[in-house]
Amino acid sequence: MEPIFATERTRALMPRIREFVLNELVPLETTDHLTGNFSKVARILDQKRELVRKAGLWGLQHSETEGGLGLSLCEFGQVSEVLAWTPFGHYTFNCQAPDIGNMELMHKYASEDIKNRFLEPLKEGHIRSCFSMTEPEFAGSNPTQMGTVAVCDGDEYIINGHKWFTSSADGAAFAVVMAVTNPDAAPHKRASMIVVPTDTPGFELVRNISIMGDPSDHWGSHAEVRYTDVRVPVDNLIGGEGMGFLLAQERLGPGRIHHCMRWIGIAERCFDLMCRRAATREMEPGVMLGEKQFIQGFIAESRAEIDASRLMVLRTARNIDEQGAAAVRNEISTIKFFVANMVLRVIDRAIQVHGALGVTDDVLLGWYYRHERGARIYDGADEVHKTALARSILKNYGLDTRKKV
Amino acid sequence: MEPIFATERTRALMPRIREFVLNELVPLETTDHLTGNFSKVARILDQKRELVRKAGLWGLQHSETEGGLGLSLCEFGQVSEVLAWTPFGHYTFNCQAPDIGNMELMHKYASEDIKNRFLEPLKEGHIRSCFSMTEPEFAGSNPTQMGTVAVCDGDEYIINGHKWFTSSADGAAFAVVMAVTNPDAAPHKRASMIVVPTDTPGFELVRNISIMGDPSDHWGSHAEVRYTDVRVPVDNLIGGEGMGFLLAQERLGPGRIHHCMRWIGIAERCFDLMCRRAATREMEPGVMLGEKQFIQGFIAESRAEIDASRLMVLRTARNIDEQGAAAVRNEISTIKFFVANMVLRVIDRAIQVHGALGVTDDVLLGWYYRHERGARIYDGADEVHKTALARSILKNYGLDTRKKV
Amino acid sequence: MEPIFATERTRALMPRIREFVLNELVPLETTDHLTGNFSKVARILDQKRELVRKAGLWGLQHSETEGGLGLSLCEFGQVSEVLAWTPFGHYTFNCQAPDIGNMELMHKYASEDIKNRFLEPLKEGHIRSCFSMTEPEFAGSNPTQMGTVAVCDGDEYIINGHKWFTSSADGAAFAVVMAVTNPDAAPHKRASMIVVPTDTPGFELVRNISIMGDPSDHWGSHAEVRYTDVRVPVDNLIGGEGMGFLLAQERLGPGRIHHCMRWIGIAERCFDLMCRRAATREMEPGVMLGEKQFIQGFIAESRAEIDASRLMVLRTARNIDEQGAAAVRNEISTIKFFVANMVLRVIDRAIQVHGALGVTDDVLLGWYYRHERGARIYDGADEVHKTALARSILKNYGLDTRKKV
Amino acid sequence: MEPIFATERTRALMPRIREFVLNELVPLETTDHLTGNFSKVARILDQKRELVRKAGLWGLQHSETEGGLGLSLCEFGQVSEVLAWTPFGHYTFNCQAPDIGNMELMHKYASEDIKNRFLEPLKEGHIRSCFSMTEPEFAGSNPTQMGTVAVCDGDEYIINGHKWFTSSADGAAFAVVMAVTNPDAAPHKRASMIVVPTDTPGFELVRNISIMGDPSDHWGSHAEVRYTDVRVPVDNLIGGEGMGFLLAQERLGPGRIHHCMRWIGIAERCFDLMCRRAATREMEPGVMLGEKQFIQGFIAESRAEIDASRLMVLRTARNIDEQGAAAVRNEISTIKFFVANMVLRVIDRAIQVHGALGVTDDVLLGWYYRHERGARIYDGADEVHKTALARSILKNYGLDTRKKV
Repeated sequence: MEPIFATERTRALMPRIREFVLNELVPLETTDHLTGNFSKVARILDQKRELVRKAGLWGLQHSETEGGLGLSLCEFGQVSEVLAWTPFGHYTFNCQAPDIGNMELMHKYASEDIKNRFLEPLKEGHIRSCFSMTEPEFAGSNPTQMGTVAVCDGDEYIINGHKWFTSSADGAAFAVVMAVTNPDAAPHKRASMIVVPTDTPGFELVRNISIMGDPSDHWGSHAEVRYTDVRVPVDNLIGGEGMGFLLAQERLGPGRIHHCMRWIGIAERCFDLMCRRAATREMEPGVMLGEKQFIQGFIAESRAEIDASRLMVLRTARNIDEQGAAAVRNEISTIKFFVANMVLRVIDRAIQVHGALGVTDDVLLGWYYRHERGARIYDGADEVHKTALARSILKNYGLDTRKKV
Repeated sequence: MEPIFATERTRALMPRIREFVLNELVPLETTDHLTGNFSKVARILDQKRELVRKAGLWGLQHSETEGGLGLSLCEFGQVSEVLAWTPFGHYTFNCQAPDIGNMELMHKYASEDIKNRFLEPLKEGHIRSCFSMTEPEFAGSNPTQMGTVAVCDGDEYIINGHKWFTSSADGAAFAVVMAVTNPDAAPHKRASMIVVPTDTPGFELVRNISIMGDPSDHWGSHAEVRYTDVRVPVDNLIGGEGMGFLLAQERLGPGRIHHCMRWIGIAERCFDLMCRRAATREMEPGVMLGEKQFIQGFIAESRAEIDASRLMVLRTARNIDEQGAAAVRNEISTIKFFVANMVLRVIDRAIQVHGALGVTDDVLLGWYYRHERGARIYDGADEVHKTALARSILKNYGLDTRKKV
Repeated sequence: MEPIFATERTRALMPRIREFVLNELVPLETTDHLTGNFSKVARILDQKRELVRKAGLWGLQHSETEGGLGLSLCEFGQVSEVLAWTPFGHYTFNCQAPDIGNMELMHKYASEDIKNRFLEPLKEGHIRSCFSMTEPEFAGSNPTQMGTVAVCDGDEYIINGHKWFTSSADGAAFAVVMAVTNPDAAPHKRASMIVVPTDTPGFELVRNISIMGDPSDHWGSHAEVRYTDVRVPVDNLIGGEGMGFLLAQERLGPGRIHHCMRWIGIAERCFDLMCRRAATREMEPGVMLGEKQFIQGFIAESRAEIDASRLMVLRTARNIDEQGAAAVRNEISTIKFFVANMVLRVIDRAIQVHGALGVTDDVLLGWYYRHERGARIYDGADEVHKTALARSILKNYGLDTRKKV
Repeated sequence: MEPIFATERTRALMPRIREFVLNELVPLETTDHLTGNFSKVARILDQKRELVRKAGLWGLQHSETEGGLGLSLCEFGQVSEVLAWTPFGHYTFNCQAPDIGNMELMHKYASEDIKNRFLEPLKEGHIRSCFSMTEPEFAGSNPTQMGTVAVCDGDEYIINGHKWFTSSADGAAFAVVMAVTNPDAAPHKRASMIVVPTDTPGFELVRNISIMGDPSDHWGSHAEVRYTDVRVPVDNLIGGEGMGFLLAQERLGPGRIHHCMRWIGIAERCFDLMCRRAATREMEPGVMLGEKQFIQGFIAESRAEIDASRLMVLRTARNIDEQGAAAVRNEISTIKFFVANMVLRVIDRAIQVHGALGVTDDVLLGWYYRHERGARIYDGADEVHKTALARSILKNYGLDTRKKV
C-alpha cells in the first residue's frame, strides 16, 4: 500500500480483500485450473461470488448511487492491485474486463430499458457481456478504420461485420458492438456502440481464437465473431449515433488504469514468488539462490520498477479523478507502455529465478507469461502510445505532427 | 547461408532440405497441430519420415561409418538451422533432442549388445528414447548434486530416484538415466549413465509436466519419472562407472551447438514472418507498417543479432570439429547465453510487429514464445554460463574463483 | 512540479528560483565556462550570490532557527531540481555538495566554537569546505576499511592518511576528515569525523585529479590529499569518537536525495534540449527530426522515466521527513541506482538527438555526460545499492545474507 | 586473433605490431597526454614514426604497387584492431583518419600532379590533411543537402561555404572539400571533391570545436572552417565533377570497417583493463572484485559482444574484398551500429568496474568514454543505418519505402 494515496476506505478494504484473495482464491491456482478451459474453474468462482456478496464486497467499482462503495478511481486502482494477486480475483468480484467497462458505459449512456434488461443482471453477475470492436482486417492502432456497418432500417439497425478479440464472447448474453453508422461524417464521428444480444439471428461466434496455445472458453475466450444481417432495435444504441469513438475513449482511460493496476498486482505476485524461491532454493550445501548477485539484481530492479509503476499509475488515477481522463491523456499513454513493459520484465525475471520449475504450470508464472504478453499490444501498442505521447509533447515545442506520419 | 562456413556438402544439401521443409512440413503448422498434444501431428510426421528416407536424407547427423552423411558438426549446424524453420523439422529427420544425443553417446560408448537392441532401432526411427538427468530436488546448475542412486547387486543395478524434465519420456522405449554409482568418489566421478527400458518394473512415468499451459504428450512431453527398485543388467552401463559427468559434458557441447543452430533457424523464421507482416500490413490508407521506424528498428536489430549469432555458433562448431569440445568450453558457454537471449528477443519483436495476431495461434510465433522461454534456462541457465565464462577468463588474470561462490 | 508533493512554500519559491536560474545563470553556460577550470566562472557566480541574498533566497536549506527558510527535505528536493537546471545553480545558492552536507553535520554535531569559526562563514559563503573520506587503497563500497588514522596526543589528534575524491578541496578553508580513532572497536565504530583547516601543517593537496579530461580547480576540483602528522585540537571532533560512520550515514541519506533531485533537474534540462532540437531541426525540406519515431521513442521513454524518478524521490524525501532516513534505507538505495541510471540514459538520448552537435561543448549535454558518469559510482555504486536492497528484502523472506558474500 | 580470418601475413605482422604498441606507445598514455592538446604527444609520436619506418611497418594500408604491404581490407582490419589498443596507434603508423581515407581517394582518382604535390608527402607523413564535408546547417544524415558551392571561373573554382567537423584541420596542409559544383544535376550528382591547400586565401579555420570538454589541436582537432571566395585550380578536382557522393560512398565503406575494427581494439583494451581490475581489486579481506557476479556478468557479456562484433566486421571486410563495398552495403550498415553500440557498452562497464578510479584520467577509460561517444553518430547515426538496413530488407519483401519518410 502506498501511503500517499491511501484513504480511510482503502485502508479498511484492502486487508479484507487481500485476506479473501489469499484464503479463497489462491488455493484454486492448481495446474488443472491454470491450463485449458476457463469453465473448469468458473463454476467454483461463481460459488466464491456468493462469499463476496455475503462479505459486503460486491460491486466494488460502483458508485454509491448504483449501490456500490463509491470508490474513486484512485481507490479502486489500489483495490484492483489486490485482486490481481491471483488470476481469479477480478472475475470473482465481478469487476473483470470487459464487463466492468460495459457496466460503466451503460450506466452513463444507455436507456433505462437497456439498463433494466442488460445492465442490472450484469451488475448482479447473472449474465456476462463482451465488447466487439477490433477487426482482423484493420490495424487496431487506427480505430477510425472499421469495416463493420450498422444501417438503419426503420426502427432497427442491420449490422454486418467481422470482429475478433471480442473477448469473453463465449457464453456472453450480449455484445456491445462498435459499428459505422455515419459513414459520411468526420472519421472520428462515424461509429456508434450498439447492444446486440448474442442470441440475435446472424450473430455467429466463429471460434474461440487460440491464444498462446489455449483457446479457452467462457470468460477466458477471445472470440472471432461474424455479424450477418443482425437486426436490433435502434434503442439498443448507447449514447448517440456517431459517439462510438468518444465513448471508446471514455472507456479506455479508466480501462487503462484498471489494466495497469492489475499488472502491478501481477508484478507483486511474481515478485513474491521470486523472493520466496530465492530465499529457499539451495544451490549447493548452505548456499541459497538469493545469495547470488544476479538474483539480487533481479530482485532490486523489480522492486524499483514496481514501486515506480505504482506511483505513476495512482498519480494518474488521482488526476483522472480530479481533472477527467481527457486532461491527462499523456499520463495515461505513459503508464500504458511503462507498466506493461515493467510487468513483463518482472514475470520474466521471476521465471528465470525459478529455473526449470519456472516454465512449468506447477507455478503461476507461465500463466502470466502467456496471458500478459498481450499487455504491450492491446488497448494501444507500446509504439502507438509512445508516438502519441511524444507528439503531444512536441506540440508544446511548436511542432505539430498531426498531419504527418 | 554463411559463405565462410559453407562446404560443398552444405551447398548441395541445404536447398534440398529447405525445399522439403517448405513443401512438406510448413503446411502442417495449423493451429490444431500447434496446440495441445504432439501426438496429433506425430502420425503425419511419421509418414513424412518415409519421404525423408526416399530422398536419401535420413541420418543427417551420422558418420559415414554409421551409414550417415558424415557431416562435420559445423556442417550439421548449418543443416540444423534449415530444419528449425519449422517446429516439425528435427523430429521428421530423426535428429531431434534427446534422441540425437543418446545416439551419439551410445554409438561411442555403449556395448555392441546395447547398440543392437537400442541404438539401431533408434537410428531407424522405430523407437524413441529419453534422457533422465534433472531432478526437482536439486539445482540443475550444480550437476554433482544428485539424489538418484544405482546400487550394484550382482550383475544388476538397482536404481532408485526421482527425475523430471525427462523430456520425451512419454512413449519412449528406453531412458538413459544418470545415477550415482560411486558415492564415495570425487564429486565429478560419482555418477554413471545407464540404459533403462521404460517397461522395466519400477519405472513410473508420474505425469507429463504441463509446460506453459501444455502438458503435451509423445515426443512433446516433459515427464516426471520415478524409479523404484528398477533393476537392469550392469551391461546397460554406457561408458564406465563414474563417467556420467564426463559423458554428459561430451553430450552437452555439441548439444548446445544443436540448440543454438535451432534457435538461429527459429529466429530466421520469426524474422521472415516479421518482415512479411511489416511489408504487407496497412496501417492507414497507403501507409504500411514497415514504413514505421520502430518496426524498422526491430528488423535492423534482429538482422544484426541473428547474423552475429550464426557466426558465433558456426565458429564454435568449427572449433569443436578441429579441437574438441573441451578446448572451446568458453566459446560454448558464450553462445549458449548469447544465442538464447537473441532468439527470445527476435520472437518477442516479431510478436509485437504482428499486433493482436501475434499472440494468437493463427501464426507460429506464440508457439516459439512459449516453447523457447526455457532456452535461457535448460542446459545451463544464462547466469551459470556467464559465471563460468567470466571465471575462466579471470583465471588467466590470476584470479582463481573455483573455491569460492 | 508534481502537485502531490507541492506545498504553499514550493509553489511560491519555485517560480522565483526558476526565473533567477533562467535569467542569471543559464546565460553563463558558454563553452568557455563549461570547459577547463571552474575558477573561470566562479568569480561571476560569486557576484550572482549577491543577487540571491538580495532576493531573500539565501540559505534555502537551512532551518528557520538557523535563519533559513525551514523547508522540509521534500520541499528542498523540489527546489533542488530547479537549481539543477544549470550546472551553476547549487553553487550560486550556496547549497552545493559537499558544503551542504558539512553544514548539516556541523550544525547538529559540532561544538559552538567550531560552529562559530567554520560553520558561520561557510553559511555566509565566505569560505568553502571539503569532505575527505574516500581512499584510493580501499574499496569505497566497504567503508569500514580505512587507512587514515587519528591518534590522540594530549589535546590534539595527529592525523596520517591518504585520501582522494576529496572534492572541492582546492581553495577550501577546511576539510571534514574521516579517520580511524578507535581501531579496536567494532568495525562500524572505529572512525570519527574531524575538522582540519587546510592551512594546518601536514595537509597536502597532492593534485586536482583529472576527471574525464578535466582537472578543474576551485569548487570543481576532486583532490588527492595527503595527511602527514597533521595536528588539530581534539575539540575539532564532530560528534563523539567512533561516530564517524553513523554521521556518514546520516549525511548520506539526505545527500542521496539531493543528488537524485539534482539528477532529475539535469534530466529535465536535457529533455528540454532534446525536444527543442527535435522540434526545430530540419532533416529534409519540411520534415523535422521530431517526426521520426526513433526520436519520438527517445522522448516518450525519457518522459516516463523522469516522471517515475521524481515520484520515487519525492516519496522517499517525504518519508525521510516523517520517519527518518534509517526507516527508509531501502527506498534510498532504490532511488540511488534507479535515478542515476535514468539521468545517464536521458543525457545519452539527448546527445544522440543532437547528432554531431551533441558531442560539442556548444551545447550543455557533453558537460553532463562527462560529469555525471560518476553518478552510478559515487555514494554507493549501483551494484552496492542493488545488493543492499535485495538482501534487506530477502531478510523478510527468512534469508539473512549478512554473513555471506 | 580470429583463426578463420587469419592469413600468413596477419599471423606474421600482428605480433610485431602488438609488441611495438605495447613497448613504444602504451607507456605514453599518461594523464598529461590524455588530457588537453594533442600536440603535447604528437611530437613524441612523430619520433616513434621513425621506429615504425625502421621496422619496415610503414604504409600498412598501401597496396604493393604503392610501396605498401598489399594487405587486403580484411587483413588490414585485423591489424587495425591491434593499433587501436592505444589511442596513439593509428597516428603513429600514419593510417589515421582522415588521412587514410584521403590517401585512398587520391591514389585512385587524383591527377598525377595532385598526387605528387599532396599524396606523396602525405604518405611519407610529412604533412597532414583533413576532410571537409559536414555542415552545421544541414543534417548529416542527408548528404545531398549541402550549402557549400564551388563555381567554375575559368580554370579555377571559387569556393564558398561553411563546414564543421573538418577533423584534424588544425595544422593540416590541405583539405579535401565537398562542394556543390552542379546544382542542377540529380541530388546525388551535384557535389564534387576538391583539394584545397589550407594556405589558400579565404580558407579560415574559425576554431577548434571543443568536444566533450576538449578543443584539442593538431590531429586531435575538429575544426569549424569557413571558405570565402577560395580559389583553386580546376585540376584540384578529385575524380570528375558530380562524383562527390560516389567517392564519399566509396570512402565510407572501408572507412566504416576501419572504425569498426578500431572500436574492437578499443573494446579489447577496455576489456583487458576491466579484467585486470576485477582480478586484483580487493573488496574486503580475501574477496576480490572479480568474484562478484555483477562483475562476472559484465565480463561475460563483453566477451560475447566483442567476439560477435569481430566476426561480423571481418566477414564484412572479406566480402568487400571479394565483392566490393556496394554489394554488401547492408552488412556495412549493420556493423556500423552494432559495433558502435558494443564498444560504448564495454567502455561503460569497464568504468563501472573501476569505480571512482574509472572516471579519472589515471586510467584510459574516460578518454575512450569521451572520444568515442560520437561513434554512434558520425559516419551515419545508429538511426540512419538501422533505417537503411530495414528498408533494404523490406524491399525484398515487396515494400519500397524509398519515396516515403
